[in-house]
Amino acid sequence: MAEVETRTYQIEHLRGFGQRVLVHFGVPEEDARQAIDVLITADLRGIESHGIGRLRSYVDLMLAKKINPRPEMKIVRQTPSTATIDGDNGLGLVIGPKSYEIAMRKAEDVGSGWVSVRNSNHFGIAGYYPLEALKRDMIGWAMTNSTKMVAPLWGAERMLGTNPLAIAFPAKREPPVVIDMATSVVAYGKIEMAKHKQQSIPHGWAIDVEGRDTVDPAVMIGGGALLPLGLDRDHGCHKGYCLATMVDVLSCVLSGANWGPFAPPDVQGMETPERRVGKGVGHFFGAMRIDAFIDLDEFKSQVDEWIHVMRATQPAPDTNGPLIPGDPEHDAEQIRRQQGIPLIMPVVEELREISVNTRIPFD
Amino acid sequence: MAEVETRTYQIEHLRGFGQRVLVHFGVPEEDARQAIDVLITADLRGIESHGIGRLRSYVDLMLAKKINPRPEMKIVRQTPSTATIDGDNGLGLVIGPKSYEIAMRKAEDVGSGWVSVRNSNHFGIAGYYPLEALKRDMIGWAMTNSTKMVAPLWGAERMLGTNPLAIAFPAKREPPVVIDMATSVVAYGKIEMAKHKQQSIPHGWAIDVEGRDTVDPAVMIGGGALLPLGLDRDHGCHKGYCLATMVDVLSCVLSGANWGPFAPPDVQGMETPERRVGKGVGHFFGAMRIDAFIDLDEFKSQVDEWIHVMRATQPAPDTNGPLIPGDPEHDAEQIRRQQGIPLIMPVVEELREISVNTRIPFD
Repeated sequence: MAEVETRTYQIEHLRGFGQRVLVHFGVPEEDARQAIDVLITADLRGIESHGIGRLRSYVDLMLAKKINPRPEMKIVRQTPSTATIDGDNGLGLVIGPKSYEIAMRKAEDVGSGWVSVRNSNHFGIAGYYPLEALKRDMIGWAMTNSTKMVAPLWGAERMLGTNPLAIAFPAKREPPVVIDMATSVVAYGKIEMAKHKQQSIPHGWAIDVEGRDTVDPAVMIGGGALLPLGLDRDHGCHKGYCLATMVDVLSCVLSGANWGPFAPPDVQGMETPERRVGKGVGHFFGAMRIDAFIDLDEFKSQVDEWIHVMRATQPAPDTNGPLIPGDPEHDAEQIRRQQGIPLIMPVVEELREISVNTRIPFD
Repeated sequence: MAEVETRTYQIEHLRGFGQRVLVHFGVPEEDARQAIDVLITADLRGIESHGIGRLRSYVDLMLAKKINPRPEMKIVRQTPSTATIDGDNGLGLVIGPKSYEIAMRKAEDVGSGWVSVRNSNHFGIAGYYPLEALKRDMIGWAMTNSTKMVAPLWGAERMLGTNPLAIAFPAKREPPVVIDMATSVVAYGKIEMAKHKQQSIPHGWAIDVEGRDTVDPAVMIGGGALLPLGLDRDHGCHKGYCLATMVDVLSCVLSGANWGPFAPPDVQGMETPERRVGKGVGHFFGAMRIDAFIDLDEFKSQVDEWIHVMRATQPAPDTNGPLIPGDPEHDAEQIRRQQGIPLIMPVVEELREISVNTRIPFD
């Protein structure tokens, strides 16, 4: 990103602007605060593809009446440790955290809570949810399906989303271990970035419309597909496909959402699949109280020690040795809390356009 | 395996022999039946690396007093939906299923059950456990750590096990979707097989003792390491490492077992790590009642439909199109239930040797 021109904003400025924009489009104040918190967390952690730069896509979907700004979320089935939730086609940024709150409350009551959600929409970074669990000394999980982008192994067309999976573990003195990963070989944003920079992509990231390997990002974007994590059959590509399957079934089949290729688009203007097999986008959340399993302090101390041992691994040639999952995002957050959030100019322009249309001042 | 000489045995013959052998070495009758059921399930599903061919390794570890044949398993902490179990250093093939039974009972009571296990040993194929859950119309999960074999991304030494992850979903008329995968690029058994056949291995499977890519299986076995799922940084190797981390923390740090490089060896003769950070091997199990989330019949019908849609994916060039997770194992089982289980001659010889030593007839 070094060569891309950016402009840096104070966190609270972006937060305030985003909230006012959502309220302008009919989102209740408290929901707007929650939704923007998810986006700003992504920006703070250096995951710009899921940050305030996505505000426009949510606004466009609300303007097109494809997202309900004032949903009435319902629990449609529950047991002491589980629930199924219907998000009434609300913002995933609102339905996600509210559903997650239910998972955490169940964990407080009976040790763990598991929630499958239907009729929701794009919920931001998956990592947001386990980070919430950490605040309550819980282990948190989050998964979601997403617009079709990925071919199953030996398939030549888009059938699954990049279906991310996140989980986090608290440490005592070290930063937490935070895993947040698409189950495809790379996120779609990397393909877009390569096209933007007119660069080719590595072999093994994507296929063309006939299922052949391509290094041209435009070919993937124009109708090809991403590959699942694992490159090829020899290197375990069936495993990436298995992980995407797991996320798809838990998030969608279990809740009654649109699974596989039938996921609704997460930006306005993309084709909506004709066939519906459920309602909206689906998520799956989990929360487990650590002290339901082991003494909390003992757990955190052992995670510290786990981190120290992994960091002390003999480094591979020409590397500084292994990172700990979550390290890059943690480092980004330290810097951005001090310096503010750099936005690339196309995002700045989009936010300025929203500002003009809503008369909410931006800068 | 076509070129390897095999001898085919009836399932019940192998089952009976295995049970008598374990009883001979002090395992209670019912535990022996359970343990052998795990091994035979692996053979039936075509996963010979975890079948009756491992009997010798369990026997050797019991003879060396490294596994307790008559463990007194204890629940050391629990809530309505969770438990932590101490396996008293028993066979993982016994402690695993007994712990899993506790997870399933909790799911019957409160919707889901989650069990972390310490002080256990090698528990067979991870897929055995979710298959048990299917019998009760539950979604089942299983994970375990294992002897160090895998380098983290940018590491040059073995720090983690192949740490498998399994989950299964029932269908209505179709076979179930069964995911059972190591989080390394391949299982260690594939390296051993390549060495046995004097073949090289593909780039990206393993590194030598200095952390450099190697295609020589003997170099990996002699002190190198396997790589995590994902080949290299560009293709998501950090994600395979993240998955191994998830399995390690849930199975070991959460239960109080030996995590990371401190896992005890799963065959006799391998070096035992000097440092202990917990007790024995660790597992993590989950069971969720499907009807806790959605109508059971609706779920199963949708999984059928999910399977039909994925099977109908346009095939990639020179392929027959995507498989469904669990297809190869399901196909193997159909054949083996009819024809019996083919064992390679080195395994036949080991079983004959056990037969001679125990005077339990084999053939």
